[in-house]
Amino acid sequence: MTILAISGLIRPLLEPRLPAGLDVRWFMTKEEALEAVPEAEIGWFDMYEQDAMAATLRAATNLKWLNSIYAGLDFLPMDVLIERGITVTNGAGINAITIAEYVVMGMLNIAKGYRDVVRAQDRKEWLQDSPGKRELSGTKALLLGYGAIGKLIKPRLEAFDVEVTVVRRSGGEGALRPDEWRGKLGEFDWVILAVPATPETEAMIGASELAAMKSDAVVVNIARGAVIDQPALVEALKIKSIGGAFLDVTTPEPLPADHELWTLDNAHITMHLSGRAQDKMFMRSAERFLENLDRYLKGEPVGPVFDPKLGY
Amino acid sequence: MTILAISGLIRPLLEPRLPAGLDVRWFMTKEEALEAVPEAEIGWFDMYEQDAMAATLRAATNLKWLNSIYAGLDFLPMDVLIERGITVTNGAGINAITIAEYVVMGMLNIAKGYRDVVRAQDRKEWLQDSPGKRELSGTKALLLGYGAIGKLIKPRLEAFDVEVTVVRRSGGEGALRPDEWRGKLGEFDWVILAVPATPETEAMIGASELAAMKSDAVVVNIARGAVIDQPALVEALKIKSIGGAFLDVTTPEPLPADHELWTLDNAHITMHLSGRAQDKMFMRSAERFLENLDRYLKGEPVGPVFDPKLGY
Repeated sequence: MTILAISGLIRPLLEPRLPAGLDVRWFMTKEEALEAVPEAEIGWFDMYEQDAMAATLRAATNLKWLNSIYAGLDFLPMDVLIERGITVTNGAGINAITIAEYVVMGMLNIAKGYRDVVRAQDRKEWLQDSPGKRELSGTKALLLGYGAIGKLIKPRLEAFDVEVTVVRRSGGEGALRPDEWRGKLGEFDWVILAVPATPETEAMIGASELAAMKSDAVVVNIARGAVIDQPALVEALKIKSIGGAFLDVTTPEPLPADHELWTLDNAHITMHLSGRAQDKMFMRSAERFLENLDRYLKGEPVGPVFDPKLGY
Repeated sequence: MTILAISGLIRPLLEPRLPAGLDVRWFMTKEEALEAVPEAEIGWFDMYEQDAMAATLRAATNLKWLNSIYAGLDFLPMDVLIERGITVTNGAGINAITIAEYVVMGMLNIAKGYRDVVRAQDRKEWLQDSPGKRELSGTKALLLGYGAIGKLIKPRLEAFDVEVTVVRRSGGEGALRPDEWRGKLGEFDWVILAVPATPETEAMIGASELAAMKSDAVVVNIARGAVIDQPALVEALKIKSIGGAFLDVTTPEPLPADHELWTLDNAHITMHLSGRAQDKMFMRSAERFLENLDRYLKGEPVGPVFDPKLGY
């Protein structure tokens, strides 16, 4: 009988719809998880504490398939996944819609200076002029990362008449090759980071990239904090060599209350909420898991697959 | 020689490009305006004080063409415009792009609870969950008013997979007739008011319309405060019979600091800034005036024409 170890949090959505003949071991704590996983063939044990989740994975010595609600799994021990040949399905795309919506919201907020409108509302003050006077229409965006999220960002921005340039190995119409975008950074009003967290993308935006941007360019990061050289970004924001940054992700997370980024008025920090700004995440994730489970039990391939060798 | 009376504010953008052979009387104050207009055939005298602008119009006894940067001109004495047969060109469409952007921004902000994210930023607090968990995707919007602004709102929302229903006299696919929308109000997540300010649209959203809306429906008003029965709206927001209101316009404007609307957390007040959140307004307006002037001097029709009998 196939043994599954699954977090009890997802139980209400899964249990009524699981096929018969499975041995499902639900757990509620990390201690229970460590007991539940050693015999499990299939595991779904997302935890808020990344260390505990990694320890649970190490204890899952019979695991063949690991599922996760998260898209980025860079905090797991990749060597364990590779050595044991574990198939990993991740949450790529589960959060994509709301993250794409969040990106456009952030850009519009910065364009219109909306944060100052909120502050004026709280003061009950009727502003006579708009704190921001930019239009998205007619601006140019560089979109780095063209996965599930990037593919949803592009048409949304294009509906606002934003000219969106993506980066693709093959280049082509409306696209730049990976060796081309750095040389064109000065052309863009928006630089949107939607890349996976890999060694290749670490600190891909550093001091020289920031220096090459327009003085009113805005960096939007919904990837991982590590994709930006954060001290270089803080410096660029302080000397206003760029216009601003909309940061859903930072290094570290949570950002400590005494971190300098909080003090910079051109830094907009959104606490990794972009993917959570929806109420369909668990439903979508359960739906996808059940479809994958059906395929897995028939010996068919599951997806979307996270490749621990590539890191996405 | 054709005599023009034009506000000095627009002089830097117009003067270098005006055709020869015109007698242009620039003015800087309302007193100067009253002196400048009586002989003028063409006038462009937008003023922050609506009463002063109306008085200037009354003094313009030889006016044949009145131009304005504003779209809504309901504060002018319509009888004067009608009696004297004055052709009026207004600013319809000048602000349309930024207003359409502002509408989507407002909807996204409410969906994601972004105002509370701003407040947390100001407290340097890392929120653990999103204060708003709605997606635009999959929601339904009723769009009342399908002029220059409405026509830009629709495709922007559709890019977010919002199902947009417009109101049109002829009805048709994706549209309701004017006598149909009230009966369907309970189907919409968003009710967007982009109608002109006319006797017909005054208080078109009142107690019964608000009562018919979904309990999480959001009203977005970028038309005129008078389009909503505001005491009824305040009551609906207080008892939470609707989800919220994004109000670019209110009655009166400015809204006094002690007005109850400021105290309601589900009211988002944006101080009639939506059209001002751009830096191209004067440029676009000057451009359009110069094109119209060229046509006028050739005896060709100018546009877009405001009809004082209809009020838009």
